[in-house]
Amino acid sequence: MTQRYRLHYAPDNASLAIRLALETLGLAYDTALIDRRNGALNSPAYRALNPGGLIPVLETAHGPIFETAAILLWLADRHGGLGPAPADPARGTFLKWLFFTSNTLHADLRMVFYPAKYIGPDPQDQAALRRGLTARLQQHLTMLDRAVAAPDWPGGATELYLCCLLRWMPLYPDDQDNGWFDLSRYPALAALATRIEATPAAAAASAAEGLGPTPFTAPRPATPPEGSPT
Amino acid sequence: MTQRYRLHYAPDNASLAIRLALETLGLAYDTALIDRRNGALNSPAYRALNPGGLIPVLETAHGPIFETAAILLWLADRHGGLGPAPADPARGTFLKWLFFTSNTLHADLRMVFYPAKYIGPDPQDQAALRRGLTARLQQHLTMLDRAVAAPDWPGGATELYLCCLLRWMPLYPDDQDNGWFDLSRYPALAALATRIEATPAAAAASAAEGLGPTPFTAPRPATPPEGSPT
Repeated sequence: MTQRYRLHYAPDNASLAIRLALETLGLAYDTALIDRRNGALNSPAYRALNPGGLIPVLETAHGPIFETAAILLWLADRHGGLGPAPADPARGTFLKWLFFTSNTLHADLRMVFYPAKYIGPDPQDQAALRRGLTARLQQHLTMLDRAVAAPDWPGGATELYLCCLLRWMPLYPDDQDNGWFDLSRYPALAALATRIEATPAAAAASAAEGLGPTPFTAPRPATPPEGSPT
Repeated sequence: MTQRYRLHYAPDNASLAIRLALETLGLAYDTALIDRRNGALNSPAYRALNPGGLIPVLETAHGPIFETAAILLWLADRHGGLGPAPADPARGTFLKWLFFTSNTLHADLRMVFYPAKYIGPDPQDQAALRRGLTARLQQHLTMLDRAVAAPDWPGGATELYLCCLLRWMPLYPDDQDNGWFDLSRYPALAALATRIEATPAAAAASAAEGLGPTPFTAPRPATPPEGSPT
């Protein structure tokens, strides 16, 4: 039960949210770099950890866990400090926004990054999907901005997850104009990004993955010490 | 803290998963029918409960909770009996498949039901998206079928959620040939649907929403005693 955590990661991928959580909790962990460019996500070894072949996986004493938000919630419940505990009256509010971030904000954004996985190779099809999704994403961000500004916002691991998504919106995909996103339109989210960016956890994660001094408020392409984001 | 739960629902919508959970737990609850056809999802009263205007909402002593999987997990942790508790070694496996069901299986299926919300009104764009999504859904189901058959499958609320999704795949959207889905290709999921269908909770939910005697293994269009699915 004292096995160290082992985070399977690629720089500036969804594993960043888990690294931020582990750093916030001050936990010791090992990392295993996933060589995306050479097909490591399709290797039998990685598929044994996550049959879907997605990043991240966290190896624990209870076995490998995948799904970013599942890992965040599992760490929150196991170690505390990353959100309201199950008996806390704020738990429901915490869970609803964590799930929304995972199944709506992140799910829609992932399609903007990888449209071919959803609609095939035709550029016109991809452009149509991108138009619909970026309009949706702006609505999601407006709704989240209000939620984060509300007095009952529960904070916790969802904030770390949101910062990663806010970072990626202007950066990826790197062959498109991502001007649909403007953090300044969402003042509560911008304040959140500023606050998290100032934490030692963010500094440690940024150093480990080459994200620079302003990874969330003014993100620049990653220049990681090892590996590559894509 | 003894406030009765109040489930905002429409027949054969995602609220069905919550009804199944409440029935499985043997809890008393009230229902509030959402008049979808007359725009109730856009009413200020409903948006105050869920700013995204989606079904379901569960009103609790701790306030309204939305997001199907968030409600399921909250009920599981509050009442037990719907999955491994936070300290259980099976918790990570429970969470990863619950999140996968929410953010991948359900998220992709929702786009098949409501393509216009993602890609606009053009029928060719919608058809392209549908082709990509139904191919993805078959992969997801294959992966889930293996997970459900594995010795470490943790069961719980995810099973109720999966049964709803398995029901909807051949039924919706009702203006399309949904032959892409064939439950018999997924023997562990078919066995799960058979098992859950035989429970008193499923019978109660089916009676309340007009789902007939085989709501998951051989679903037919709902004939609800009140309201309509769309």
